[in-house]
Order: sequence, then structure tokens, then C-alpha cells
Amino acid sequence: MPTYTAPLQDMMFLFEKLRNNKRYNEIEKYKEVNSELVKDILEEAAKISQNIILPLAKAGDENPPILENGVVRTSPGYKEAYKKFIEDGWISLSCDPKYGGQGMPKTVSAFFDEMLSSASLAFKLYSELTIGAYNCILRHASDEIKDTYLPKMIEGKWSGTMCLTEPVCGTDLGLLKTKAEEQPDGTYKISGQKIFITSGDHDLTENIIHLVLARASDSPKGTKGISLFLVPKFIVKEDGNVSSRNGVSTGSIENKMGIKGSATCVLNFDEAIGYMIGPKNRGLNSMFTMMNLERIVVGIQGLGISEIAYQNSLSYAKERKQGKANYSKSENGADFIIDHADIKKSLLTMKSIIEGERALCFWLSQQTEVSLNHSDQATKEEASDFVSLMTPVVKSMFTDMGMEITSEAMQIHGGYGFTKDLGIEQLYRDNRITPIYEGTNSVQAADLVFRKLVTKNGDIIDKYLNLVKEEISINDEKIQSFTKQLDHYLNILREFTDWIKEKIKDSKDDVSAACNDYLKVLGLVATGHAWIKVLEVSFKDYDNNKDFYKDKIQTANFYFNRVLPRAESHFKTAKTGSKYIMEYKFN
Amino acid sequence: MPTYTAPLQDMMFLFEKLRNNKRYNEIEKYKEVNSELVKDILEEAAKISQNIILPLAKAGDENPPILENGVVRTSPGYKEAYKKFIEDGWISLSCDPKYGGQGMPKTVSAFFDEMLSSASLAFKLYSELTIGAYNCILRHASDEIKDTYLPKMIEGKWSGTMCLTEPVCGTDLGLLKTKAEEQPDGTYKISGQKIFITSGDHDLTENIIHLVLARASDSPKGTKGISLFLVPKFIVKEDGNVSSRNGVSTGSIENKMGIKGSATCVLNFDEAIGYMIGPKNRGLNSMFTMMNLERIVVGIQGLGISEIAYQNSLSYAKERKQGKANYSKSENGADFIIDHADIKKSLLTMKSIIEGERALCFWLSQQTEVSLNHSDQATKEEASDFVSLMTPVVKSMFTDMGMEITSEAMQIHGGYGFTKDLGIEQLYRDNRITPIYEGTNSVQAADLVFRKLVTKNGDIIDKYLNLVKEEISINDEKIQSFTKQLDHYLNILREFTDWIKEKIKDSKDDVSAACNDYLKVLGLVATGHAWIKVLEVSFKDYDNNKDFYKDKIQTANFYFNRVLPRAESHFKTAKTGSKYIMEYKFN
Repeated sequence: MPTYTAPLQDMMFLFEKLRNNKRYNEIEKYKEVNSELVKDILEEAAKISQNIILPLAKAGDENPPILENGVVRTSPGYKEAYKKFIEDGWISLSCDPKYGGQGMPKTVSAFFDEMLSSASLAFKLYSELTIGAYNCILRHASDEIKDTYLPKMIEGKWSGTMCLTEPVCGTDLGLLKTKAEEQPDGTYKISGQKIFITSGDHDLTENIIHLVLARASDSPKGTKGISLFLVPKFIVKEDGNVSSRNGVSTGSIENKMGIKGSATCVLNFDEAIGYMIGPKNRGLNSMFTMMNLERIVVGIQGLGISEIAYQNSLSYAKERKQGKANYSKSENGADFIIDHADIKKSLLTMKSIIEGERALCFWLSQQTEVSLNHSDQATKEEASDFVSLMTPVVKSMFTDMGMEITSEAMQIHGGYGFTKDLGIEQLYRDNRITPIYEGTNSVQAADLVFRKLVTKNGDIIDKYLNLVKEEISINDEKIQSFTKQLDHYLNILREFTDWIKEKIKDSKDDVSAACNDYLKVLGLVATGHAWIKVLEVSFKDYDNNKDFYKDKIQTANFYFNRVLPRAESHFKTAKTGSKYIMEYKFN
Repeated sequence: MPTYTAPLQDMMFLFEKLRNNKRYNEIEKYKEVNSELVKDILEEAAKISQNIILPLAKAGDENPPILENGVVRTSPGYKEAYKKFIEDGWISLSCDPKYGGQGMPKTVSAFFDEMLSSASLAFKLYSELTIGAYNCILRHASDEIKDTYLPKMIEGKWSGTMCLTEPVCGTDLGLLKTKAEEQPDGTYKISGQKIFITSGDHDLTENIIHLVLARASDSPKGTKGISLFLVPKFIVKEDGNVSSRNGVSTGSIENKMGIKGSATCVLNFDEAIGYMIGPKNRGLNSMFTMMNLERIVVGIQGLGISEIAYQNSLSYAKERKQGKANYSKSENGADFIIDHADIKKSLLTMKSIIEGERALCFWLSQQTEVSLNHSDQATKEEASDFVSLMTPVVKSMFTDMGMEITSEAMQIHGGYGFTKDLGIEQLYRDNRITPIYEGTNSVQAADLVFRKLVTKNGDIIDKYLNLVKEEISINDEKIQSFTKQLDHYLNILREFTDWIKEKIKDSKDDVSAACNDYLKVLGLVATGHAWIKVLEVSFKDYDNNKDFYKDKIQTANFYFNRVLPRAESHFKTAKTGSKYIMEYKFN
């Protein structure tokens, strides 16, 4: 079983030293969230992740949940762990105190999301969608619904799902067939089949609150006729207690390559009672609130799995002796593989990506909070734009990098990485869902170029590019070897952006064929930007924590020398266009 | 379950139209191996692969072999399929007629290796190591041993293994501990534990011939004290029949992420009787005969799995409707996903890599045959040099690309790619061993730069670069847009080569940190070279088969526009050296 120690030092460094980012400090309600408090929380979070949740990864993989007489039973140990998890109040961490939440900012809860992903993604998913559903209900539902459902969800007694996908529609929700028949009392009867529903059914909570996309009988076809409904597994009485079973049942549990501990269900809705959330026919918009936040969390899943893969690779490389290093001083036998340049390079690749991503994610968490809670409307909106721009990037890049990093971890472990004993291959399998769900990474890339790059006349990306340009103009010699390099790739990104904006007018296929490349370049530059912020502090504050900052500077240096230059070929290939691709006819 | 149709047209194209490559046609013994004969063989090979072997993939994955009372039982259906497989003589395809083989060249057997890898890698492995052991025995054993063992192995009644790895040694065989005690009769008693032994035990054959690396009691430490022994599972009597069980038993079967149908065993040797093969203390050299050929076959495994992943992605993309294409003409609903530019791009990425690799592999098979069977010593040696240079490239590049291609296949299938139903995720898991076994891809890269690039004063790579340069100087306007591009990357490769040769003198860590990058550039250029050969025929012979050649030219065009440029950033990052990597101290 892999071991795991939450990277508290790095997290606290970000929280303490990078607080000043972009208006975050001006948010009134978080002024009391100080370092001591956050440190206490993260230490407790580390404990439950390392001690209680980590062992569930293997348990879930070896004994996936089963469907027995219509009831889903979770893997051994999940019930007990979940009980402890909610008793300690972990679900409520970032939720609104009005409904019983602890009101912590995403700058804190994102760290906890990372820890949980490292420990057991399958277990994490049982609570993750509850938060997703909570966010959606909080923004779009009536007060009555909020008062009825949110406290129990925050407490963890009830969990949540998001029911979008159907057999004929994953990416393309316009095709969905689930029906909603309005009843005289204003409720709806929901009928249809939903598939790939994470935590669709389980025995951890006394109720499950499904957020279901369906089409009212008088609504138009396509995406403009979709509404959002709240459909509880058990009907909730006026006194807030659960009563009879609603018309939703579990058809089957998917047999998957990874995250086996997570119950991915086929749900059959048969005249289930549902309550409309938000305006009729605007269900996709309401759902997107949930989905966008969720996409960032999926990115964090990739980061978390990367971290545990790295930690275990590092300790294995320190223990395993094999072959002599180039300038070995050992007289007999082999050297530790960490002394081999290619293994060191592999470990630094992981580390420099992970720490860069964590810094970028922290920046994004700050922007998210600013977008939600800043007092100035313009500031809020700008932050919201940055969040919308960076969401597909974080989702795709972190999950793709997660595959690269877990793959590198397997290579470092050799044959032992491919057998089940050490649990390394499980990280690789578990992470493999992350580039697929919540919109495949290609869908994210399309969202980036066709939506984010064109809304507001393309101003958002320009503002972002200007922000980076501005923030890397640092008058400090030491940092300039870094900023100079980033500037080179920033220019490529700017050119690439202009090219996309031009092509989108009349050669959309050129843009489609280039979108994944564009996302990668933006991701590499954004991570470089995040590293610059880390470097700025590292040089300024150097004397106060030499070892730590030296490590940061060296790791950043690796990123700039060995990872960032991957941006090189993308624009070159993208520029070749799509004519020859679209003209090709497959047999 | 994935479907599979062997790509006979492409294979026959290579066999018929690219025969003239590099002296291959001068080999006397293959003059009678004509197109009709090869077509007949490949058609039969396709039938058994598609009809008998393909269904074993799922069977093996769902019901891996089990160890019961010391006996390994293979997965359901394996025994029956293996019986048919050997009855039809498939193991003997490329073996020496002297011992009952059919004497087909590797230009033919490599195609069969590809088909088997597409159909079921796990099943293939039961016969693959028999061929490996056959090659080793054929080259290094005494006539007596050859006469005793080879006919039964070629017939498939006995199978083979290669026993190298031990708990403390995978990459670094110098550490191995298995002992060989010489007996008065000249035999040895072998004792020790071997792990990760593919087909180490099973119920498909009446005997298993282990080729075991062990250290004679009076041999020195390290790699120079290792000898090779033949250790049969059952002792063979003078009349050629099996008698009593030898001292080798199965400790356990590994529980693996993929190729679950293959029995990967821990073997315990306890004073097992063994016969020395080849000279004492030169066991590694003898084993390398087997290993080098085997490494090419592992590359072919990656190619075969890529092909079936591509075929199934293509048919899924033609069937699945989701979203509207950019210039959709459909009034209602969605378009087939194959009409989306990014999906088309993804499919062409697969196709252009696969067909390029197949052409490169064909070239390498020809070189292998020339190296073994040409009448002129100098020609033989030059071909042998090219084979040794290209072996690590084909092993690593094809298996890495196999991961990329099976991963793309999962993305195209979305959620259905992650669940077990369609069998796509199994391709991804099965292929994941190929970058690990037979020497990890990093070990291949080290072999390339530290051995292949320096032997014969570095002449081999120079000869290869000159060969490519020469062969792309084609006086035909149509092909020059391709050759010009390749020339650009050939220059980068040459510069990179010079840099490696310089650094290897006194900065070996720079070379280690660059070796994977170097291998990738060489692989991309070599595949480009193979494509040029295909293009040359395609333009010249265009009017005789317009549709086929148009497809080739378009596919090549995609490779040159979208795949080859990946070579861009590798030399740039490699040049940053390793000082900063080696100076970094991990906590």
C-alpha cells in the first residue's frame, strides 16, 4: 500500500506567503482566517487523510461496492470511515455557516481536496458530489428547498449526485431524453435513465439528493429545453425527516478500470417526484455552476494522485539499489537508483509539475473567492473571468499530467509498478478517469477556445496575458533568467491566441484541430506564471528559510529548463491547419 | 469485446513494394518466398488471430491462470486454442527447417507477431518466449542439446522461458544470486529464486524449457560471472521423452494490472539439474541474442495493440453521434463524432504513427535477415549494426506510442472507454507492461546512448544518419515537401548526436539525463525515414492503385505536419545539461 504524508509545509507556504495575490486579502469575511487556524485545520485534515482514508483505497479496489437486492453496499470500512468523516465535520469545511458550514475559503478547502484525492479518490467521491450539489442548490434553489436540504447535506447525513449523462448523451446534453411531467401541485414526475452516476446509490447516508437534468413535456428540443430538478431518494416530509422511497432505483453498478471503490451507477427514474431548481429551461446554466467548480476539483484530483505517486517513487528510489551511477564511488554492488541522472530527472519532472500546479491552483482558489466575495463588482467580475478561463486548463492539464506522473511512477518501480502489491498501478488506474469525466479533456479544450476565448470579445485572455506580462516584469536580476524564458513562451502563446481568434471567424475546424495544443501551451505558461510568484517570494524571503527556498528555486529551475519548453512544437503543428485533416476520408 | 481485422493490405503492400530495401533481395534462401505464398500464410494467420485468439483476451483478463496444488491452470479456452495453434504449425513459422521449422523470414513472422499482439498479448506470450529460447539455443547450444530440445519446442509441445530477474535484480543482472554447482557428470545443480517469469508455469505443454542465468560457484561476482543454463521442468530422457520432475517449482503467480491471462511466475529452483549453454561466464552474451530479438518483438506488441485500439476507435467514431460538427449540415440532433476535427485529428495521429511504425518495423526485419543470412560479411555486419542501433528505439518508441494510442482510444470512447464492457481499457492495461519488461524504456535509452552510440567509434549512428540523408535525396518534386521537413529534423538529430558524443567523454550525467529525449528524436526521424520509403513507392506507383496511395500520401502528410515536429523541444531541453539535476538533493 502506498504511504502518504500531506505536503503541509508547501501548503502553508502558499497560504502564508502568497496571500497578497490579486485582491484576495480585501475580502472581508476571510480576514479572520489566519495562519494558525489554517494550520490547525490542515493538520487535522492530514491526520484523517493519512490514517483513516488512505487504507480505503486498497479496500475499495479489491472489494468494490455491490448491488444486492436493489441495495448498494459500499466497500469494507467505508461506512465506519464515512461516519468519522462527517462526525468531524469535514463535509462542512467550505460551506456557508448559515446552514451549518464552517465557512472556510477555497484556498483552504482545495488543500483538503488534494489530500483526499491522494488518500483515496474513490472514497472522496462520496462526499465530493455532495459539495457540488450543495453549491448548485445554494445558488439556484428557493429558500424553502435550501432550508430543507442544505443543513443535512452539509452535515453529511444526506449526500448528493449530479445526473446528467444518458446512454445517448454524454458530451452533448442537448440529446437528453429524461422527461419531467408537471403535476398540479407544482412538482414534477421524472422518468428516464441516467448512467455513469457517481455515488448514485450507496449505504453511507440516509438519503441521496439527486440533481437531475430533464426535459419538461412542453419544453423545446435541444439544450434550450432542459431544466434542473431536485429528486431525493427518499421523500422528505415537512418536518425534515425522510419518509417513503421515491421512484428512483439502481439498475446496475459499472465495472470500471479504476476508482473501483466508487459506486458508479445506472439510475432508473420512474415517475420520481422532483422539484424544479432555478428557472425552467435554464437547467444547463444552473448545472454549470456546479460543473465549473467541480471541474477545478477534478484537476485537483489529478494533482493529489500525482503527489502520492511522487512521494512513493521518491522513497522507492531511495531504497532500491540497481546499477552503478555514472560517477559511482561504491566499490561493490549497485547504487540507489536515485543517484542515476535519468531517475533524478524523472523525480524532478514530477516534483516541479506538482508544486507548480499547486501554486497555480492556489492562485485559482483565490480568484474564485474574489469572484464570489469581493465587495467591488468590477473586481469580482474580472476574477470570475479568470476562473472561467483557467477552469478547463486546470481540469485538463492537471489530469493529463497526473497520467504522466503516475506512469513515471510505474516506470521507476519497474515490474513492481505493474503488479498489485505496492499499489502504484492503482494510482495509474484511478487517475485514468480524471481526463474523461466532467467533460473529456478535449471537451475542455473546445470550451476554452470556442467559449472562453471569444466571450467579451476575447478580452479575458488578453487581460490574462497582460496580467502575466505585468507580473513577470520584476526588477530583480536573480529572477530574470526565469522571467525571460517565460516571456518567450508568453509571446508564443500570444501569437497562438491571435491565430485562434483569427481562424475562429471562418476556419473553425482549424481551431478544433488546434484546441488541445492551445490548452497545453496556456497550461504550461500559467504554471510558469505560478512558479514566478513562488520565486518572487523565494528570492525576497530567502534568508528566513534558506533550505526551503533553495529547494523552491532549484525545482523551479528544473521546470523552466525541462518542462516549460514542451510548449515549443504545439503552435508550429497547429498552424498547419485542418484542411488536410478534414479532407481525409476514413475507409 | 473489441473487434479486429488484420491489416493484410498494408502488410502485403510492404512485403511486395518495399522488398528492394537494402540488400534484402540478395538473400538466397528467401528467393522463393514470393507474394502468393506470403499472402496465403498471412490470410491463415489472420483467421486464427481473429477467430480463435481474439476471444482469449477477455477470457484471460476475467479468469487469470491459477496456481492450485502446485499446478498452474491457464484461463478458460487457452488449452484448446493452444492445441489448434500448434497443430497448425504456427510456432514453427520462422524456425529453421532443419529442426522442423517453416523457415519464413522475419519480414513475414513480424506481421504474425503483430496480429497475435492485437488479438491477445497474454495468449501470445505463451509461445513468444519459446521462440526466444529457440533462438538462444540455436545459436549457443551444442548439437546434442539442439537435437534434443529444438524439434519439440518448434512443434510447440514444449515451451520456453527466460529466467533473468530476481528480487534484488531486474535491470542490474550483475547482482544475481542464483547458484550453479557443477556435478561430476558435467551438469549443474541450480538453486535460487527467479521472479516475473513469463509463462514460468502452465498446463499448455508437456514440458517447459527454462533458460536460466546463474552463477557457478567458482565464478566471479558481477556480470562477468554469469552463465546460462538450460533447465527443463521435466528431465528429458535419452530417447527424447520426458521423465521425472526437475527441482523447479512455482512459488506464486503475480497479480498484475494487465496481461492477466499470462502466467507471470515466481520460480524456485532447488538443486534443479541444468545444462550449461555457451561458454562459462558468458551467459549474459548468450542471453542477449534472445533479448535483442525479443526487444524488437516487444516493440511489435505495442504496434499490434495500437492497431486494434485504432480500429475500434475508428468504428466507434463512425457510430457514435455527439454534438454538431463545425460546419454541420444536419438539421436535427448530433453528428457522428468522426466529423469533429479534433476526433479526426486523434484518429489520424493513431493511424499515421501505426503505419509509419509498421514500415519501420518492416525495414528492421529486413535488416535482421540481412544480418543473419547475407552472403557478404561486410553487408551482414552493417545490417547487424543497424539492427542493434534500432532495437532500443523500436522497443521504446512503439510501446510508448502504444500507451498514447490506447489512451486516445479511451478518450474517444469517453466513459465507455473506462468501463470494462467494450474492452478498450484492457488494451490500455495490457499494453502498460510493454514499456517496462525486457528492460524499461529508460534502460533502452541508456543502452542506445552508452552502447550503440559509442561502439565502433560511433560509426554506426553516423552510417545510419548518412543512409537516411542519402535515401531522402530524391529527385522528385512531389516528395520534396516531405524530405525537406525530415531533413530539418535530421539536422537536429545530427547535432544532438554530436552533442551526446562530446558529452559522453566527461559529462556522462548530461547524457543520462538526455537519453530518453535522444531516443525519441531518433525514433521520430526513423519513422519519418520509413514513411519516405512508403511515399517514394506511392508517388511512383500512384496510377496503379490510386485510392490506396492517396491514403498513404495523406496519412504521411499528417505524420510530417503533426507528429514529427514533436522532435522540436527535446534537444533544447537536453542541452540544459544535468548539473542542476545532480546538484539537487531530495529531502
